[in-house]
Amino acid sequence: MSEPVSTIDGWYSLHLLYSVDWAGLRVLDKDERDALTTELQAFLDRQQAVHEKHEGDYAFYNIMGHKADIIFWLLRPTADELINLELEINKLAISDYLISTYSYVSIIEMSSYLGGNKTPEEMMEIPHIQQRLYPSLEKSKYICFYPMDKKRDLDDNWYMLPMEERKQLMRDHGMIGRKYAGKIKQYITGSQGLDKYEWAVTLLSDDMLEFKKIIYEMRFDETSARYGVFGDFYVGGHIPNDAVADYFG
Amino acid sequence: MSEPVSTIDGWYSLHLLYSVDWAGLRVLDKDERDALTTELQAFLDRQQAVHEKHEGDYAFYNIMGHKADIIFWLLRPTADELINLELEINKLAISDYLISTYSYVSIIEMSSYLGGNKTPEEMMEIPHIQQRLYPSLEKSKYICFYPMDKKRDLDDNWYMLPMEERKQLMRDHGMIGRKYAGKIKQYITGSQGLDKYEWAVTLLSDDMLEFKKIIYEMRFDETSARYGVFGDFYVGGHIPNDAVADYFG
Amino acid sequence: MSEPVSTIDGWYSLHLLYSVDWAGLRVLDKDERDALTTELQAFLDRQQAVHEKHEGDYAFYNIMGHKADIIFWLLRPTADELINLELEINKLAISDYLISTYSYVSIIEMSSYLGGNKTPEEMMEIPHIQQRLYPSLEKSKYICFYPMDKKRDLDDNWYMLPMEERKQLMRDHGMIGRKYAGKIKQYITGSQGLDKYEWAVTLLSDDMLEFKKIIYEMRFDETSARYGVFGDFYVGGHIPNDAVADYFG
Amino acid sequence: MSEPVSTIDGWYSLHLLYSVDWAGLRVLDKDERDALTTELQAFLDRQQAVHEKHEGDYAFYNIMGHKADIIFWLLRPTADELINLELEINKLAISDYLISTYSYVSIIEMSSYLGGNKTPEEMMEIPHIQQRLYPSLEKSKYICFYPMDKKRDLDDNWYMLPMEERKQLMRDHGMIGRKYAGKIKQYITGSQGLDKYEWAVTLLSDDMLEFKKIIYEMRFDETSARYGVFGDFYVGGHIPNDAVADYFG
Amino acid sequence: MSEPVSTIDGWYSLHLLYSVDWAGLRVLDKDERDALTTELQAFLDRQQAVHEKHEGDYAFYNIMGHKADIIFWLLRPTADELINLELEINKLAISDYLISTYSYVSIIEMSSYLGGNKTPEEMMEIPHIQQRLYPSLEKSKYICFYPMDKKRDLDDNWYMLPMEERKQLMRDHGMIGRKYAGKIKQYITGSQGLDKYEWAVTLLSDDMLEFKKIIYEMRFDETSARYGVFGDFYVGGHIPNDAVADYFG
Repeated sequence: MSEPVSTIDGWYSLHLLYSVDWAGLRVLDKDERDALTTELQAFLDRQQAVHEKHEGDYAFYNIMGHKADIIFWLLRPTADELINLELEINKLAISDYLISTYSYVSIIEMSSYLGGNKTPEEMMEIPHIQQRLYPSLEKSKYICFYPMDKKRDLDDNWYMLPMEERKQLMRDHGMIGRKYAGKIKQYITGSQGLDKYEWAVTLLSDDMLEFKKIIYEMRFDETSARYGVFGDFYVGGHIPNDAVADYFG
Repeated sequence: MSEPVSTIDGWYSLHLLYSVDWAGLRVLDKDERDALTTELQAFLDRQQAVHEKHEGDYAFYNIMGHKADIIFWLLRPTADELINLELEINKLAISDYLISTYSYVSIIEMSSYLGGNKTPEEMMEIPHIQQRLYPSLEKSKYICFYPMDKKRDLDDNWYMLPMEERKQLMRDHGMIGRKYAGKIKQYITGSQGLDKYEWAVTLLSDDMLEFKKIIYEMRFDETSARYGVFGDFYVGGHIPNDAVADYFG
Repeated sequence: MSEPVSTIDGWYSLHLLYSVDWAGLRVLDKDERDALTTELQAFLDRQQAVHEKHEGDYAFYNIMGHKADIIFWLLRPTADELINLELEINKLAISDYLISTYSYVSIIEMSSYLGGNKTPEEMMEIPHIQQRLYPSLEKSKYICFYPMDKKRDLDDNWYMLPMEERKQLMRDHGMIGRKYAGKIKQYITGSQGLDKYEWAVTLLSDDMLEFKKIIYEMRFDETSARYGVFGDFYVGGHIPNDAVADYFG
Repeated sequence: MSEPVSTIDGWYSLHLLYSVDWAGLRVLDKDERDALTTELQAFLDRQQAVHEKHEGDYAFYNIMGHKADIIFWLLRPTADELINLELEINKLAISDYLISTYSYVSIIEMSSYLGGNKTPEEMMEIPHIQQRLYPSLEKSKYICFYPMDKKRDLDDNWYMLPMEERKQLMRDHGMIGRKYAGKIKQYITGSQGLDKYEWAVTLLSDDMLEFKKIIYEMRFDETSARYGVFGDFYVGGHIPNDAVADYFG
Repeated sequence: MSEPVSTIDGWYSLHLLYSVDWAGLRVLDKDERDALTTELQAFLDRQQAVHEKHEGDYAFYNIMGHKADIIFWLLRPTADELINLELEINKLAISDYLISTYSYVSIIEMSSYLGGNKTPEEMMEIPHIQQRLYPSLEKSKYICFYPMDKKRDLDDNWYMLPMEERKQLMRDHGMIGRKYAGKIKQYITGSQGLDKYEWAVTLLSDDMLEFKKIIYEMRFDETSARYGVFGDFYVGGHIPNDAVADYFG
C-alpha cells in the first residue's frame, strides 16, 4: 500500500448545470417571464448577501454550446445547506424551463503534498490557505469547470506511486499553475466518495484564452500527461444578477 | 483456475433511484399533492413497521445533483418481496412524477476471506455476522451508495490472483474500513449474476465528510488502486417519513 | 489464423425488453386496461400453444430495477416467424404503454468444443443435444439474462488462442456449469453477425440466489476471468399468463 | 510511416435507420395511414426505377429488435443526390412517425490490397470490379449491416503494420469471404472522413444463418481477431415495395 | 516534463449542430414557416456582412445522417461575441424546431512546430499565417468537421514524446496535408481547456471524396496511426443563405 496523502477540507461545493427550454419560455407572456426572472434574481441576490457575509459563496455563468446553458456554483459550510439550496432551485418557478444536464458534488480541498513539514492542523492556520478553503469569489468575466481523475491503468497508476514521487510531480505541476497567478483564479474541489470523478477544477479569469494556455501547457507535464483523465470542459461568461431578465428575456 | 471465494448471503437488496418531475408536481392543487405524499408516507410507514419487526429494512434519502433526486433502499428475505415492492412503488400515484434513473439488484454479502478457518455455516452462527447479513439500519443523516467491480485487465486481474494474495489484500483493505467504525456504517451487497457491477457499497454516516475521507484513503490501498473499478457515487441526506410532504411540497 | 470452432445451431431466438409506462396505464378506465391485458394474455396463450406443440417456445418475466419492467423471450425455427412476432407485439394495443429498452437477436447454439470426435451432424442426432437446441422451457420462478463477448485485448485474446487451449478452457468452464445441473437451466444463444454481443446466456431457476452463486464461481475460472466481457444482467420473476391483468392492473 | 493502401471508390452510400412510432400510427384513421404508406411506396417505386436504369440503387428492410424498425440503404453517383434523398425522406408525411436511430455515410470501396500489380485505373476497367463499385442489388430475403474499425491499440495497431503484412492478412481474410460466394452478397463501404467508424459491411442473403456462420468464422482470422473493432449489428428481413401498407397497417 | 509547444491563437470559434423537428415544422402554415426562415435568413445575411468586413466569419451547411441536420460554424475575435451569437440563435423563432445535438468551443490555432526558428510574435507577422488565423471562408460545396485528441495511453503517449520527435511527426503529417492544397481548405481549432476533445478539424472542399482520401491517407501516418483519437465525423453540403426557405420548406 502506497502512503495516502492527507487533505484539508473547506466548504462543501455543488455545481449545477442546466439547459434552458427556450421554446417553453418563448410562449410565456412578458409578465409571466418577468415573474420567473424576478424570483430567480431574488434567489441570486440572497446568494450575494451570503457572499458578503462570507457565510458561503456562489457563481452564476452561462455555458457555451450544447452541454448546458447555465451553471450555478454554490459553496457552503455544510452539506445540509447545499441540499436545501438545490431543493430551493428545484422549486423556483423558472425550473420548469431548466433541464438538468450535469452536476458535481465535492468539497474544496487542499492536499498536503505542498505543505512541507506542516501538519494539516498547522496548515489550516495559515491565512492564504484559509482563503483557499473558504474563498471569496470574484465576479470574473469567464468560468471554466471540468472534472478529472488520476489514472489507474496498468503501468500508469497514480495511486501506486510512492508518496515522494507524487509529491515531486505535484510540485512541478503546481509551478505551472503559479505562472498564471494574477491571470487565473484556480479552485480545486475533491469528490472521492461524493461523485464519479475524483476532483473538479474551477477556473475564473477575465480572459478566456488563459484557460486554453494553462491547460495546454499543463498537458505536457507528467502529472497530466501520464496520469490525468479529464471529463468534459464547461466554459462560459458571467451573468450579473441584474442581467438575469435580459438573459432569459 | 483460481480458487473461488465462498460467500455468505443475507437479505435481498434493491436500490431504486428516481428524479422528481418538479414541474409536474407544481401544477397540482395542494390537495392533489397532499394525496400523493400521504400515500407515499403510508408506504414508508409500512416499511418502518417491517424494520421494527426485523422482517426486512429500508432507507429513504434525497440524492444531491442531477443523477437522481431520491433513493429507496429496500431489504427483504426473498426476491419475491422485492419484486412486489417495486411493483407497489410503480403503482403509487406519486410515481407519475418519478423518473427512474438507476437501480441496483443485489444480496447482502460477506466473503469468507476474513473468516479464518471457519466454514460459511460456522460464520453464520456468529451474532455480529448475523447483524451484518440481516441489518437493522440506523436513520443516519447521510447516505453514500456506489457500485463497483474488481478489475480484469491484462496484468491487473483480480480474478486471476491466487486466493492467498486476494485474502491478504482484502485483510489490508478491511483494516482501513475498521478505522472508520463508529463514524460510518458500511454495507456490502453482491450482484454477480444480478446486475452489471459486481458489488455495491452503501455507507451511512452522520458526517458526509467521512465518506470522502474513507474512500480517498482506500484509493491508495492496492485493492482499490489496482483492482477497483467504480461506478457513479450517489450521496444525499435523510428524508424522515414525516418530512415527505415538505420535501415534495 | 486460429482454427475456428464449428457450431450447431437450433432455434432462432429473440429477447425483447420493455419498460412499462405506468402513468399512461393509470389514466385508463378499468375497461380499457382490461381490453389491453386480455389481448396480451391471448397473445401469450398462443405462445403457450406453440410451446405445447413444440413448434417453438416463449418466456414472459418481469425484470427488476430501472433497466426494464418485462421481458419476452421468443424461440422459433425461422427468422421470419420472429420478425412477424415482433411486429405482432408492436401492434398489440398494450404496446402504446411499452417502451423498448433492449433486445437481443440470436440463435440457440452449441459449440463443438465438447463434442469429442463427433461431427456436428453426428452431434445433432443425440437426443439430449436436440433437447438443448430445441428446448421445451420450464416455467421456472426466475430468469437471468445477460449478453457477453469473448475478449480480444492485446495478450488477452480468446480468438488468437489455439483450438486445444480453447477446448480445455471451455471444458473446465463447463464443469462448473454441470455442478448447477438440477438447480439452473442454462441456454446459450450465439449472435455473431446478428447482434452487438457475441452470445447471450439465459438462465432459469426456482432460486434466484443460484444465479449469483454460479456467476461468481465462474468468474474465477480463466474463461471468464481473462476472456469474459459481460453486458448488463437482467433478472426477474415469472408472470404466468393468467396473472397478466394483475401485473398491469 | 506505413505505406497507405490506395482505394477505388464507387457510388456514395447512405444507410438510414428509424424506429417506428407505432402508437402514433395507431391513432390515425385508416385513410390517413393509407395516405402515408401510399406516399412512401411511391418514393420506393422511384428508387426501383433508379435501380432499373442503374443510376443508383436502394434497399428497404425491417430491422429486428429495439435498435431500429426499418432501414433505407441508398446508393448514388453523387453526394448531392444522397443529401437530397435524405431531405426527401425527412419531408415524407410518414416521417412524423419515424425516429432516427442510426445512420452511416460512406462510399463503396475496394482496396487495392488484392489488385496484384494492377493500378487503380486498370482495376476499374475490370467488369466484375465495376459490378462491385456500382452494384445492382438483389432483393435478398435478409440484410445484415454493421460498421467497423481497424484497431489502433498499442501492439495491436493495423495502421502501423507494413503494407506486405496487411496485404497478406487481407488476402487470408478474403479467402474466407470467398467460401460464402453464392450464399452471401457482401458490400464494403468506406467512411474515413465521412463517419465515425471506418467501414461498414452490408450483407444480403436468403438465409440469415449464413450471417452468423461467416462472421463467426472470420472472427478467428487474425484480421478480425486482432484488428477488428465492431459496432452494432443490424439484421432484418426484406419489405417489398408493395408490402409497405401491410407493414405499417 | 516534456517541453510544451507554444501556439498562436486567432479567432474564437463555435460549432453548433442541430437536428430539425421536421414534424413540428410540417404542422405550421406556410406563412408561419416563412416568418421563421425569413428571420433565419436575415441572421445569416448579417453573418455574411461580418464576413465581408472581415470582422469574423461563418458557415452554414446541412449534415448528412442522424447526428444532426444543420451546422452553424461561427468565428469572431472575442468570446463575448460568440456567447451573444449563441444566445441570438437560441432566441430565433426557428429554434423552437431545432434540437441541439453537438457543439464545439475552440480557438483557431497554429502550433509553432512548423515555425522553424521564428518566435510566435514573428510568425504572426507573416501574411499567410494571418490568413489562417483570421480566415475568410469560401462557400465550398461540402464541409467535414471532426474533433480529435492526441492519445495518452501507456506507451502511446503523445505528450510524453520529446519536442523533437513531435516536431518531426507533425512535419511528416503536414506534408500529407500539403498534397491536398487546392482541393481542401483545412482549419485547425484548439480547445484545451474549452471543450472535451483537444482539437477540431474543419475541412471545406468542392469534392466530398477528397475528405475520404486525405483522412485515409493520414491514418497510416504515425501521428494519426499511433496518436490520433477521433470523435464523430460530420459531413454535409452548403446551404446558401437564399436557399434557407427551400431547405426548411
